Amino acid sequence: MRRDVFSAAHEDFRELVRDVVAEEVVPRYAEWEKAGRLPRSFFERLGALGMLGMAVPEEYGGGGRPDYRYNVVLQEEAARALVTLGTVRTQLDVVLPYFLAHADRGQRARWFPGLVSGTLLTAVAMTEPGTGSDLAGIRTTAVRDADAYVLNGAKTFITGGLLADLVIVVARTSRDPGDRRAGLTLLVVEDGMAGFTRGRVLDKMGIRTQDTVELAFDGVRVPVANRLGEEGRAFSYLSHNLPQERMTVAVGSVAQARAALDTTVAYVKEREVLGTPGASSQNTKFELAAVAAEVEAAQAVLDRAVLELVDGRLSGADAAKVKLFCSETQARTVDRCLQLFGGYGYLPEHPIARLYADARVTRIYAGTSEVMKVIIAKSLGL
Amino acid sequence: MRRDVFSAAHEDFRELVRDVVAEEVVPRYAEWEKAGRLPRSFFERLGALGMLGMAVPEEYGGGGRPDYRYNVVLQEEAARALVTLGTVRTQLDVVLPYFLAHADRGQRARWFPGLVSGTLLTAVAMTEPGTGSDLAGIRTTAVRDADAYVLNGAKTFITGGLLADLVIVVARTSRDPGDRRAGLTLLVVEDGMAGFTRGRVLDKMGIRTQDTVELAFDGVRVPVANRLGEEGRAFSYLSHNLPQERMTVAVGSVAQARAALDTTVAYVKEREVLGTPGASSQNTKFELAAVAAEVEAAQAVLDRAVLELVDGRLSGADAAKVKLFCSETQARTVDRCLQLFGGYGYLPEHPIARLYADARVTRIYAGTSEVMKVIIAKSLGL
Amino acid sequence: MRRDVFSAAHEDFRELVRDVVAEEVVPRYAEWEKAGRLPRSFFERLGALGMLGMAVPEEYGGGGRPDYRYNVVLQEEAARALVTLGTVRTQLDVVLPYFLAHADRGQRARWFPGLVSGTLLTAVAMTEPGTGSDLAGIRTTAVRDADAYVLNGAKTFITGGLLADLVIVVARTSRDPGDRRAGLTLLVVEDGMAGFTRGRVLDKMGIRTQDTVELAFDGVRVPVANRLGEEGRAFSYLSHNLPQERMTVAVGSVAQARAALDTTVAYVKEREVLGTPGASSQNTKFELAAVAAEVEAAQAVLDRAVLELVDGRLSGADAAKVKLFCSETQARTVDRCLQLFGGYGYLPEHPIARLYADARVTRIYAGTSEVMKVIIAKSLGL
Amino acid sequence: MRRDVFSAAHEDFRELVRDVVAEEVVPRYAEWEKAGRLPRSFFERLGALGMLGMAVPEEYGGGGRPDYRYNVVLQEEAARALVTLGTVRTQLDVVLPYFLAHADRGQRARWFPGLVSGTLLTAVAMTEPGTGSDLAGIRTTAVRDADAYVLNGAKTFITGGLLADLVIVVARTSRDPGDRRAGLTLLVVEDGMAGFTRGRVLDKMGIRTQDTVELAFDGVRVPVANRLGEEGRAFSYLSHNLPQERMTVAVGSVAQARAALDTTVAYVKEREVLGTPGASSQNTKFELAAVAAEVEAAQAVLDRAVLELVDGRLSGADAAKVKLFCSETQARTVDRCLQLFGGYGYLPEHPIARLYADARVTRIYAGTSEVMKVIIAKSLGL
Repeated sequence: MRRDVFSAAHEDFRELVRDVVAEEVVPRYAEWEKAGRLPRSFFERLGALGMLGMAVPEEYGGGGRPDYRYNVVLQEEAARALVTLGTVRTQLDVVLPYFLAHADRGQRARWFPGLVSGTLLTAVAMTEPGTGSDLAGIRTTAVRDADAYVLNGAKTFITGGLLADLVIVVARTSRDPGDRRAGLTLLVVEDGMAGFTRGRVLDKMGIRTQDTVELAFDGVRVPVANRLGEEGRAFSYLSHNLPQERMTVAVGSVAQARAALDTTVAYVKEREVLGTPGASSQNTKFELAAVAAEVEAAQAVLDRAVLELVDGRLSGADAAKVKLFCSETQARTVDRCLQLFGGYGYLPEHPIARLYADARVTRIYAGTSEVMKVIIAKSLGL
Repeated sequence: MRRDVFSAAHEDFRELVRDVVAEEVVPRYAEWEKAGRLPRSFFERLGALGMLGMAVPEEYGGGGRPDYRYNVVLQEEAARALVTLGTVRTQLDVVLPYFLAHADRGQRARWFPGLVSGTLLTAVAMTEPGTGSDLAGIRTTAVRDADAYVLNGAKTFITGGLLADLVIVVARTSRDPGDRRAGLTLLVVEDGMAGFTRGRVLDKMGIRTQDTVELAFDGVRVPVANRLGEEGRAFSYLSHNLPQERMTVAVGSVAQARAALDTTVAYVKEREVLGTPGASSQNTKFELAAVAAEVEAAQAVLDRAVLELVDGRLSGADAAKVKLFCSETQARTVDRCLQLFGGYGYLPEHPIARLYADARVTRIYAGTSEVMKVIIAKSLGL
Repeated sequence: MRRDVFSAAHEDFRELVRDVVAEEVVPRYAEWEKAGRLPRSFFERLGALGMLGMAVPEEYGGGGRPDYRYNVVLQEEAARALVTLGTVRTQLDVVLPYFLAHADRGQRARWFPGLVSGTLLTAVAMTEPGTGSDLAGIRTTAVRDADAYVLNGAKTFITGGLLADLVIVVARTSRDPGDRRAGLTLLVVEDGMAGFTRGRVLDKMGIRTQDTVELAFDGVRVPVANRLGEEGRAFSYLSHNLPQERMTVAVGSVAQARAALDTTVAYVKEREVLGTPGASSQNTKFELAAVAAEVEAAQAVLDRAVLELVDGRLSGADAAKVKLFCSETQARTVDRCLQLFGGYGYLPEHPIARLYADARVTRIYAGTSEVMKVIIAKSLGL
Repeated sequence: MRRDVFSAAHEDFRELVRDVVAEEVVPRYAEWEKAGRLPRSFFERLGALGMLGMAVPEEYGGGGRPDYRYNVVLQEEAARALVTLGTVRTQLDVVLPYFLAHADRGQRARWFPGLVSGTLLTAVAMTEPGTGSDLAGIRTTAVRDADAYVLNGAKTFITGGLLADLVIVVARTSRDPGDRRAGLTLLVVEDGMAGFTRGRVLDKMGIRTQDTVELAFDGVRVPVANRLGEEGRAFSYLSHNLPQERMTVAVGSVAQARAALDTTVAYVKEREVLGTPGASSQNTKFELAAVAAEVEAAQAVLDRAVLELVDGRLSGADAAKVKLFCSETQARTVDRCLQLFGGYGYLPEHPIARLYADARVTRIYAGTSEVMKVIIAKSLGL
């Protein structure tokens, strides 16, 4: 059915992205997967094309068009070509909003040009070993000392942490025994600061072009000028960004579910042409029809939420519903599609196998399905 | 999330419907279920309120507003009150479109006023014993004899057939051995015509305010003036109406899934207030959260399809996807909700039990889920 | 696969039961369903055939063979004929064990002959309005007064309560504020005792040959001689019987799932013979194959548990696993089978519709699926 | 519940296996996974321990105990330690039976000692590129030329093909246009024969200690003395072995599902001890309880089938039901368990991630779930 989300400007952007993906991503994707990350040069290339700074004000070289739909287009076009854009997604959808919303004049001048050009890579460091994504449990501390905060602690599961020039670290600047969510502050740690080290690169089942690392902060002196926003307000900042962070997972889920469907339909037809017996048996048809109906539903609810997000009205509970539904749909979809490939589906040389391995994380990151249910239940008054 | 389907006019209509349902349906619903049908007086009441003729041209007393969204509102408001409007839905969503599209001037004059006022009740007779909903298998024949067709055959599963004053019968007027879908014609049989008899009223698991009957035609002379549209064109007429017929099931499915969710949330909260241990356990919360996410998705895809239908662009395959998805969602939803009532869920005095029994038919009628999959697969090129 | 459960004696019994079901149940089943209960004469007939007293000692006219497998055979043969034996199951599987285990010499003499002959019908009254099956919440009280207990309270969801001559009532004889499970006692209330009244017969979605009623006790004087077992021990007695009570549900679930499969396979073949297009499409085959695999698994785990029960080794957690799995399997199975009947599946005249309506309760009664999970989780150390 | 499958001899063997796994497999498993195969030395070690020749007659150095339950024990004990034995399983469960059943006296003398000692590794080559597991489509040919067959063709998805000293190749020795299943013959190709080459080692999503390769035969002269069994009888030989081949997948599925459950229960408890909030929330408990019930059912139906297999009575349809059910159960189980690990579940360093990747193949190999359904449906007369 007709989608009511995009304007001509978005579609023009889509054409551009499609070409970049076809020419610069697809041919090198296997190599990037093997390397476990995107090369810096690719960020710089996207920067040169104006794709990293769409949302950044024009005075810093950006496009001046803060519109989440451009981000949607990026994920959709990557998925259509059976790849992902790795940490680009995190950089644009998850990290950049913190800079846009909270960077002061000086920070804007220092960092925005690099964010736009792709020479400054970023990450946000929230999760800590053992505590999962529970902000109340954060133990990393930042103690004010003259014009700096002294930062101590460890973070894990940090997407993009390997190459990040700037890491937004969530740290505890004061302890309110009554409310462990208060007293959190965002500090921007820069590559090369004394005491800041990167630990293990975590080996993951899939999403191999996104590096995921451990970070350690051992007495890092972070200048007060690197504080993002006000002291003690991080919980509110993070909460505000969570709906978009969840949407970005949902966008990927639907795009990849659709890609799985499309590549499977194509595979089945090709096998039929080749005369493989039973290539398009009734079971195959029914499986793909069921998948198509689910993808259509996921697309519709996602698009509705995208419009709400763009309008600034998307509630946390609605984002949770959409993330839950779309990631679950992706899981079912990719599993059913893979099955139709038989043994070939088990070989990573077939993209469906990669889609399968990639899919398993979307019910987990940016808040597990269980966390989504907690949020939704609360909104039902339960 | 905000629905983008309705205007102020629809919302005004909704208020009106809500009052009618509360005052005239809810108090008598148990009685109507027991009777197995709606009373004629209720149709006349709806007619007097202008609710049956919204889509009929004003010159015949109608509202002159052919807009499917009014039909949507009717189902939604009934579901919200945990009832359905029985055969009203069939009359407006399924049968009326044939009259609107194909009645000639004379037929309009004869029938439209009665359709508007609720004094003429209708049904459409397609399915025959043993052949299911396969139009190619229709064996009822109509042989031209002077100014009439002589109609012979039997029909079954006819919703609203018990009281219908006018029955649109699909009959075979010629046999093309090469294409069994050709040669079908619509004839309007009137109550009281010689040779037209009603057979058994079928006992159904649920949807008890919709009577479902067998009809028999034994040499019924149907005047040519009662032919709806052209001879031999019925297959095309039926195909054209199928998307709306399927949408009407989907609309009901989503409305009832939402009603099941709402009534269960209310029940759980009430039990909690009463101090029932475990009333809102985590399992209860998670079940209802999962249901809420699914209902949200179903609503979104349904609304998108409603807009497509209103714009005259809804394809058969998209209607099939929506019907498939929404009816499957309803089934899962109502089952999960009922479980949270424990033993009370098994007693028809609790509306959830009725919602459960009613729900089982939506994956079957207006084309089974399997038929939907056939249609969708075809649209995928399989 | 070969079942390793039954001996020749069980198979002989099976033959007998099969004949009784075919000759005396099937022809009258519709009538019994309409009446909402079994007639007393049927119990007397079963008694005359020795089927009610298999487990009762020979000195009281019983068969002296306390072997749960005879009960299994009864349910299996009923299901095979697409009927159930209504409250016979409750009487034999749920109520009789209390009498066998706890009746003293005098009670045996008074009641066993009638239990064997089918002239004494029974029920057990545990559940109370609002508290569900939580024994800790029981509010019915029995206060000792000379040689009697004065019983006050209300019970609901009492299977077989309508005709019961003897009702085993769980009542609170003392209050231990620290342990609300203590202080419960079993008292046998007899039909006709002053102050004992039957309330509403509950209308249920299915299982219509099992009457389910409300009971009220208003100052009923129950002689101490009618106390079953020791005062204050009821919680332990009930706990001991729960595994068998749950098994009896599981036995029915598997037998009825198998019956659904068999009747659907037969229906599909018959339709194929009749030339119905698509009668045995690949989808139909795959659905039934999947169902067959699930039923095979359910049968295997059930049979293993039956042997454990017969050997007196079945743990509460294992009974819970089996009840959970088998009732869930039944639900999926019957739903999938019904779908293959199309519209006919929605008509109670087809047994599949009755199997569907009956099936919904098995995930609820004798402890809901949620209660089963609580028990299983505890056994996992969680 | 008590399993009724094993004797004391099996349990003694189990102890031995458990020690070998703990001491010789677990410490080196990561290394083997990285290598993509087991080392020859491990086969020799198992051979020295008598584990490879249990089923081989004593005159060739074997254990003289052809009892599939020893094979079951091997898989179970590996799974318990969260590893698999890679191609050992294929060698013993899939390939060895062909040698045992069809090797003539000379072949026994040549090969059995090496099979027992672990110095001769084996594979069976059935599948060909593009045809999947459809025997009728085999295009590899063997043309008799004096005392040899000249073998031409290509095979793929050959488990253990990388190191195999002996490869049983299914080749077409004659063409019956009416029955493409006839005319198939088994030939044993030896490492080093001219024209026999190994192609790509396929990269797989999981099961990394099982190498899977492509093989090519270009005019390989296979002596007639290397023909296994009679010419033209391979279809019947293969069909006879398929039930065991499928059982071996089912055995692994259940063992690994149980391992997933156990490791998840342990993980959850450990997290609870560490004070992680919500470690054992009700959702976690309910998920694991549901999994436990499913695993119990899978174990029961599997054990019943093992006994049937040992007794030589397991039908192809029953093996298909068990393989279908157990592999589907494994898939659901491992997915649900992984979810409870949150982000850690996505890291292959946690065994649950490996169990997940390994699990995806069991619904595919040794006949897909769809093939199983075809077989089952046929047994239902559909």
